[in-house]
Amino acid sequence: MTIVTEAELRRAVPLDRDTVACVEQAFLALATKAVVMPPILRLDIPEHHGEVDVKTAYVPGLDGFAIKISPGFFDNPKLGLPSTSGLMVLFSARTGQVDAVLFDNGYLTDVRTAAAGAVAARHLSRKDAKVAAIFGAGMQAQLQLQALMLVRPIVEARIWARRPERADALAVTLSDRLGIAVRAEVAPEAAVDGADIIVTTTPATEPVLSAGWLSPGQHITAIGSDAEHKNELDPAILARADLYVADSLAQVRRLGELHHAIAAGTVAADAVFPELGAVIAGTAPSRSSATAITVADLTGTGAQDTAIATLARGRVAAAGIGTPFES
Amino acid sequence: MTIVTEAELRRAVPLDRDTVACVEQAFLALATKAVVMPPILRLDIPEHHGEVDVKTAYVPGLDGFAIKISPGFFDNPKLGLPSTSGLMVLFSARTGQVDAVLFDNGYLTDVRTAAAGAVAARHLSRKDAKVAAIFGAGMQAQLQLQALMLVRPIVEARIWARRPERADALAVTLSDRLGIAVRAEVAPEAAVDGADIIVTTTPATEPVLSAGWLSPGQHITAIGSDAEHKNELDPAILARADLYVADSLAQVRRLGELHHAIAAGTVAADAVFPELGAVIAGTAPSRSSATAITVADLTGTGAQDTAIATLARGRVAAAGIGTPFES
Repeated sequence: MTIVTEAELRRAVPLDRDTVACVEQAFLALATKAVVMPPILRLDIPEHHGEVDVKTAYVPGLDGFAIKISPGFFDNPKLGLPSTSGLMVLFSARTGQVDAVLFDNGYLTDVRTAAAGAVAARHLSRKDAKVAAIFGAGMQAQLQLQALMLVRPIVEARIWARRPERADALAVTLSDRLGIAVRAEVAPEAAVDGADIIVTTTPATEPVLSAGWLSPGQHITAIGSDAEHKNELDPAILARADLYVADSLAQVRRLGELHHAIAAGTVAADAVFPELGAVIAGTAPSRSSATAITVADLTGTGAQDTAIATLARGRVAAAGIGTPFES
Repeated sequence: MTIVTEAELRRAVPLDRDTVACVEQAFLALATKAVVMPPILRLDIPEHHGEVDVKTAYVPGLDGFAIKISPGFFDNPKLGLPSTSGLMVLFSARTGQVDAVLFDNGYLTDVRTAAAGAVAARHLSRKDAKVAAIFGAGMQAQLQLQALMLVRPIVEARIWARRPERADALAVTLSDRLGIAVRAEVAPEAAVDGADIIVTTTPATEPVLSAGWLSPGQHITAIGSDAEHKNELDPAILARADLYVADSLAQVRRLGELHHAIAAGTVAADAVFPELGAVIAGTAPSRSSATAITVADLTGTGAQDTAIATLARGRVAAAGIGTPFES
């Protein structure tokens, strides 16, 4: 087997058009192949303000499957450590033997999550989308904007975050790094006004985006709600949207924004919505007009993890990096 | 973090009284502490006759928690590979950071499973149990007998297996290795007749042990049924037993022998049974008399995995073995 460090993975797997295409294929596979994707295993350690998610999927046609372990320990910053860490283990789909251990400390999750935002925008937002609004000021806020620029002609971005000083700092960083106009907004509705694409990347447990702020033609991607208690979108947004798309319908019913809309009674518990993979495959409708409001609810799927781990493994092998290890 | 090979783990963690005590503590914790043990994550890859189980548990008081990944790929022997493999990852319970990766290829699972058999026998079988009957001829058949000898004065054992030539070969091996009389039996009822402890270790999907073969005073431990479709005990055995004990009641209702007894209608779906940890703690009754028939239904718990991984980590650190790795 091969063991690979975060530094090696950062070199081998940048966020680029190839990683977006890789994650797009994962969603397509979810809609068109007999992907086996069990429910997420979740371990809570309330004593230490920690939680661990384990995700996996077998995608027919790929040589391997990944099992990803993602711990989130929210007191870590007090200890000078990042909240999230983790690793992916890639197994042979034929023998179950360990092929590679990717000690990515969550890096590949960051990339595949950002790439999913690009895939959603490519298939749901207007082709001429120029203005992005990003909610949140963490790693995904940065990467989602960068990912949007891979698929849409973004020339302007606004950042809103609960802590204005963090939004200010991120706006300066991204403006510099990405070479577009990025500004912080203190009022979330000001960030949304005139935006073509809105991406919410917060750990919010109460809605941060109100239905009343939306205008025709906007696309919203919500990526923060990856656990039952998280909620970024006003439930009325799902009722108001012309098109609502899930990454995995089974999963968003339990974890995503849909879960909260069902709880709020704005959507029926058994309502059926298309998955992103079906939109990609063309078996579900995409945006119907320039004035439609579209919503993508992304909770993060094991299929993305298997796809990105497989991509990483191939690149690591081709580049001759990583450390062989026998056991 | 430290990465540890199977060879290092075999040296550091033999099946002995200490590992039995370690697993006993895990069961005790399950009954007496706020252990967090999520349902098993299971991935099936029918295309390659493969399955993967992921188990975990947080045990308050332990510094770490393990996540164990156990693949079973049943066409592997045709390729000259073992069916089972896998690894355990030990995380800090305080920060979620990886502390150690134990590339044990299933070895620690073998040990903690055998140790659980010893714990069940210590708390449920007669103290004077001298004769063991083992069903199956694989790794657990060997280890379960070895484990029984750590807790009971076993002087004789019988082996029954579906393939008599394998039972013959194992009887010769164990007789030699353990220094007691071990013989193969072609008829399972002959193996059971006069045995004090019966341990079933097969991958059977239909009962291999009939209720009609049992005699007063016997103890049965079933360890083969770790998935919905597996079944070793005649459902009538659970109805006939004076005491039936589960490793995890929630889990045996889904996966264990209890699952099949409920399906067969011999036990009510909501019937409540004690867990092994409660017997150890003394909060549930143990064997009531020398003539009682007792049954332990062991499906394998994440608490055992966390316990054995923690033990292994401590021994590896104390011995200064394993390979440091940074990422």
